Amino acid sequence: MKRITVGVVGAGRIGKLHINNIKNMPHVRLKTVSDIYAEGLKDWFMTSGAEKLTEDYRELVNDPEIDAVFICTSTDTHVEIILEAANAGKHIFCEKPISFSEEETLKAYEAVQKAGIKFQVGFNRRYDRNFYKVKQLVEEKIIGDLHVLKITSRDPNPPSLDYVSRSGGIFMDMTIHDFDMARYISGSEVEEVYAQGATLIDPKIGELGDVDTAIITLKFANGAMGVIDNSRQAVYGYDQRLEAFGSKGSAQVNNETESRVDLLSKNGVTGDNPLYFFLERYNDAFIREVEEFLDAIMYNKEIRTTFKDGIMAQRIAQAAKESLESRRPASVEILD
Amino acid sequence: MKRITVGVVGAGRIGKLHINNIKNMPHVRLKTVSDIYAEGLKDWFMTSGAEKLTEDYRELVNDPEIDAVFICTSTDTHVEIILEAANAGKHIFCEKPISFSEEETLKAYEAVQKAGIKFQVGFNRRYDRNFYKVKQLVEEKIIGDLHVLKITSRDPNPPSLDYVSRSGGIFMDMTIHDFDMARYISGSEVEEVYAQGATLIDPKIGELGDVDTAIITLKFANGAMGVIDNSRQAVYGYDQRLEAFGSKGSAQVNNETESRVDLLSKNGVTGDNPLYFFLERYNDAFIREVEEFLDAIMYNKEIRTTFKDGIMAQRIAQAAKESLESRRPASVEILD
Amino acid sequence: MKRITVGVVGAGRIGKLHINNIKNMPHVRLKTVSDIYAEGLKDWFMTSGAEKLTEDYRELVNDPEIDAVFICTSTDTHVEIILEAANAGKHIFCEKPISFSEEETLKAYEAVQKAGIKFQVGFNRRYDRNFYKVKQLVEEKIIGDLHVLKITSRDPNPPSLDYVSRSGGIFMDMTIHDFDMARYISGSEVEEVYAQGATLIDPKIGELGDVDTAIITLKFANGAMGVIDNSRQAVYGYDQRLEAFGSKGSAQVNNETESRVDLLSKNGVTGDNPLYFFLERYNDAFIREVEEFLDAIMYNKEIRTTFKDGIMAQRIAQAAKESLESRRPASVEILD
Amino acid sequence: MKRITVGVVGAGRIGKLHINNIKNMPHVRLKTVSDIYAEGLKDWFMTSGAEKLTEDYRELVNDPEIDAVFICTSTDTHVEIILEAANAGKHIFCEKPISFSEEETLKAYEAVQKAGIKFQVGFNRRYDRNFYKVKQLVEEKIIGDLHVLKITSRDPNPPSLDYVSRSGGIFMDMTIHDFDMARYISGSEVEEVYAQGATLIDPKIGELGDVDTAIITLKFANGAMGVIDNSRQAVYGYDQRLEAFGSKGSAQVNNETESRVDLLSKNGVTGDNPLYFFLERYNDAFIREVEEFLDAIMYNKEIRTTFKDGIMAQRIAQAAKESLESRRPASVEILD
Repeated sequence: MKRITVGVVGAGRIGKLHINNIKNMPHVRLKTVSDIYAEGLKDWFMTSGAEKLTEDYRELVNDPEIDAVFICTSTDTHVEIILEAANAGKHIFCEKPISFSEEETLKAYEAVQKAGIKFQVGFNRRYDRNFYKVKQLVEEKIIGDLHVLKITSRDPNPPSLDYVSRSGGIFMDMTIHDFDMARYISGSEVEEVYAQGATLIDPKIGELGDVDTAIITLKFANGAMGVIDNSRQAVYGYDQRLEAFGSKGSAQVNNETESRVDLLSKNGVTGDNPLYFFLERYNDAFIREVEEFLDAIMYNKEIRTTFKDGIMAQRIAQAAKESLESRRPASVEILD
Repeated sequence: MKRITVGVVGAGRIGKLHINNIKNMPHVRLKTVSDIYAEGLKDWFMTSGAEKLTEDYRELVNDPEIDAVFICTSTDTHVEIILEAANAGKHIFCEKPISFSEEETLKAYEAVQKAGIKFQVGFNRRYDRNFYKVKQLVEEKIIGDLHVLKITSRDPNPPSLDYVSRSGGIFMDMTIHDFDMARYISGSEVEEVYAQGATLIDPKIGELGDVDTAIITLKFANGAMGVIDNSRQAVYGYDQRLEAFGSKGSAQVNNETESRVDLLSKNGVTGDNPLYFFLERYNDAFIREVEEFLDAIMYNKEIRTTFKDGIMAQRIAQAAKESLESRRPASVEILD
Repeated sequence: MKRITVGVVGAGRIGKLHINNIKNMPHVRLKTVSDIYAEGLKDWFMTSGAEKLTEDYRELVNDPEIDAVFICTSTDTHVEIILEAANAGKHIFCEKPISFSEEETLKAYEAVQKAGIKFQVGFNRRYDRNFYKVKQLVEEKIIGDLHVLKITSRDPNPPSLDYVSRSGGIFMDMTIHDFDMARYISGSEVEEVYAQGATLIDPKIGELGDVDTAIITLKFANGAMGVIDNSRQAVYGYDQRLEAFGSKGSAQVNNETESRVDLLSKNGVTGDNPLYFFLERYNDAFIREVEEFLDAIMYNKEIRTTFKDGIMAQRIAQAAKESLESRRPASVEILD
Repeated sequence: MKRITVGVVGAGRIGKLHINNIKNMPHVRLKTVSDIYAEGLKDWFMTSGAEKLTEDYRELVNDPEIDAVFICTSTDTHVEIILEAANAGKHIFCEKPISFSEEETLKAYEAVQKAGIKFQVGFNRRYDRNFYKVKQLVEEKIIGDLHVLKITSRDPNPPSLDYVSRSGGIFMDMTIHDFDMARYISGSEVEEVYAQGATLIDPKIGELGDVDTAIITLKFANGAMGVIDNSRQAVYGYDQRLEAFGSKGSAQVNNETESRVDLLSKNGVTGDNPLYFFLERYNDAFIREVEEFLDAIMYNKEIRTTFKDGIMAQRIAQAAKESLESRRPASVEILD
């Protein structure tokens, strides 16, 4: 029976999440975790399931025992680590976005292609059972030809201003997931974007040059249209819905809830809000994306969320930003 | 084009409801309304659409111009009026229950049969589009063979104690609708009843020898089973649900609501309560039952809710009462 | 008690609908109906409840007994009739859009203002209980400040190509209702529109220079944003949904259905489709809009859907058309 | 940090389920599994996470390293194993029902009490988040005083006839979970039961002296009433619903589904069926019940589903059987 040895670079929120999932997976040895703040992680490390904790990711990248590397550091460090890991022949799982620079991203892409390794980008939502079901309904033409794809994606709370300032903007940080979902569900490239945005939640987000509320319309290469609406703050929870409308019908993803309990009282019929936290909402998807990545390595299977997917979502985000600034639709160059 | 002339005996809540519906119907002449309290109804009469108001129902029953009579008086007067109207050859629409006495009821039944007139009993719920749809799903065997029929029937508020004392008890007053629905949906007679009841809402209802909360189980002649749960007070509205469970599936009637609006807030996802008032909930059904009655007269069609239906529901109610007292199941004699 | 005498110009589908509703209303005398095809309407007229049928609307407009005129003819005749009726001092109910020409519309507007009559434009959806409830939730700030307004509006079937060719285009014919709803719910003017459209249902619609599928984004004067998605064909019914998302929550209108019955079978849990036909879906709203119009005349109340509302919806439709052609956002001039 | 060593007696479906859950739990050492068919389990054992496989449960019961024993064998062996394990001072988790004999059960109860060990009975549904939420709503009087408790519990498929013949009958095998749930949610003992049953699915079940469809009404000591409806076959899935109706409102548990996707097509609006398999439906509950058991041992906490709970559910099942035979309500003796 095959076994795989992995290392994780970056033990922040998302890194810890993956580590926690990996440690329960059969056939995986979680050898090394690196983090520049390793010093402060010693207590956590005791129960992490990992064998080794280090400050230097190179230790991990250059370890001949390690087959695959999870890159969970801040975006600005991704490319450097990808380059080293690819050169060392490690398979790579990298969180999104790959970088804030198209040029840098393409450099990493080239290195990965040359190395012939497996590379997966962390678009976890593709692995959610609901979105996956709609993907199938579209692919199998149960809804006929896709005409309109609608995505509602709202966070329960805005991130810290510090985070906002380093995030690359709402399109690169938040909508990038929706751009990827749009490409995934439609099975088509996005050719043109028109973005409208405003700062309706916190003026300080505006002072940082970002928006907190946005509506983005899309033109797909296959003729269909799309629309995404984003908000940094839905007080009732993490609102994640999608509708794929076509010539034979419509498939709609509603929100997941903590329970299926309705309370009938003088105040009406009250059910649960959407799950509040993204880790909870996409818990199963986070597990499945790692399982698929490891499976793809062990059995030489196709990766579902490829480097190209990462690049294209990034380009759409970039075009959205341009559109917001120019107040015109912006076109998206499609990677061959 | 045919035309029909009607009179209404009794202008209480339900009488006024029918009058209000009748006056908007084409091909109907609403000639006379009688009520023992006619004196107090003069203002209302002005806008009632009726031509004549009298204290004496005999005026109406003996009017050769009148084709059909609606009996909307208190239950204890039904039989007397039915006998006179039948003898006068009038078609009769009579509110439920026909009487509190099996003997009296059968006397009226005989007279009606002898007179060869159309007779409809006011089980309005059969004319509700939801219950009617389930009736069809059962009849067409879409749910396969019926195994279990479940009815939830809860009032928003208990009636006045005065009303309770004259009501004939919860089974005769309230559950009688559910007993009729059970026979209607199942297409089968009820052979046996077991009733369990308690006074959980208002002890004064118990002092009057009645219960305010009940669960009644039924055995149908066709082998299926049923269960009804009643409450005199659902604080959230008039709760009217039904489930027909069978070998191939289940058909479920959910509550009607004022709007289709959901409000998402920190307090959860809140929708409308069930419609609060029976006149509102069954508004369409009240109209349709009268339309069908008039139609049956004009075009000599079958009546959907017959005198026999009235008698059988009454017998089941009587058996339920016996069961509650004897704490044993009680059998129901089926009218040939 | 006050009474009002009305005439209806145009007895096509929508004219007949209003006539049918008017004839059941108390305090209204439906005197005259005019239609250029009066000859073919003689049979229908017999049961219409109207007293007189004529080919010439002038007969009606100049009848001193008539207080109010319903203009239900084709759009290109509206202005002429408005001018004559306003000059004759008749109150006017006019179907939307008022005209296809801004100049013509303003001419009519001026005449109406000068005449000091009541004028209502037929935006029936404002009178729907669901949308009205959301209007209230927004106005009372139950959802806080409005951030994003979303409208889904899809017809069950495309109109005939003949109709399309005379319709003024999808924005003027179909989306105009949604533009009005956007202004109504938000309580704010629309300043800018960006429209994206395609011919995905029937290429012949494209040959006529129109689109059959569209996404339109809006900027409101109060800072909020909006998005409307339209389709000429939703095979599952007339899809009419709306969401008002704000700082304290979200109010969502779901579709109305024929029944509340769910069928559970091997094929899943299946409920009713949205009501298929607009007359059925907005039946109550069509009645209420006329009631309010008559009420406004009899008791000198405010009109809910004013001439200005008609002009502004028309201007937004015009801007949407410009945007679609120029592939740029278009601004909307606000009427003082 | 505390650690606990466990053994599992019986590696059938439910035993394997617990083993699979236990092996992923921290702080637990899964030492020994015994099964009389150990020979055939060798392959499975390789990946079971257990250290040792044996045919003889005594090996496990007498192992001084083992702290707690899971009894997952057939019901007729429970008491013997409980007695030995209790005498050996092991904590015990025992699947339901404890035995088919009241006398035997009480013998085991006495031994457990004398031994002063922790004993948990496998009523997994108490650990389901939905039912637990309703339990809280009832306990905190959010629904006011409980008036009526309704449980719908339907299997997707009847078990094999062989299983039926050894099951102790539907009430002891299937409804026993619902009886426990009734006691749990109400917080009250059941004093009286009336059971009605029929063989509507498979006549062969009737030939074995059992029924496949049942309605059972309950009287609680606190005055409330209950009703359970059971079927051995709901073709649309594992139907697990509950409603707690009280003086201030009603709390309702709806079914769990695989996805939140609705498909709108010409055939209506179709959502997922209830989850089909009990292991899937109660997956989380099975994990939580074991976690709580282990926690109760490690930190000397209260057990949520006690031996008494097992005895009382069994007594209600016994009374239901008596009621079905005598066609009278049967009373339930409450254990002090």
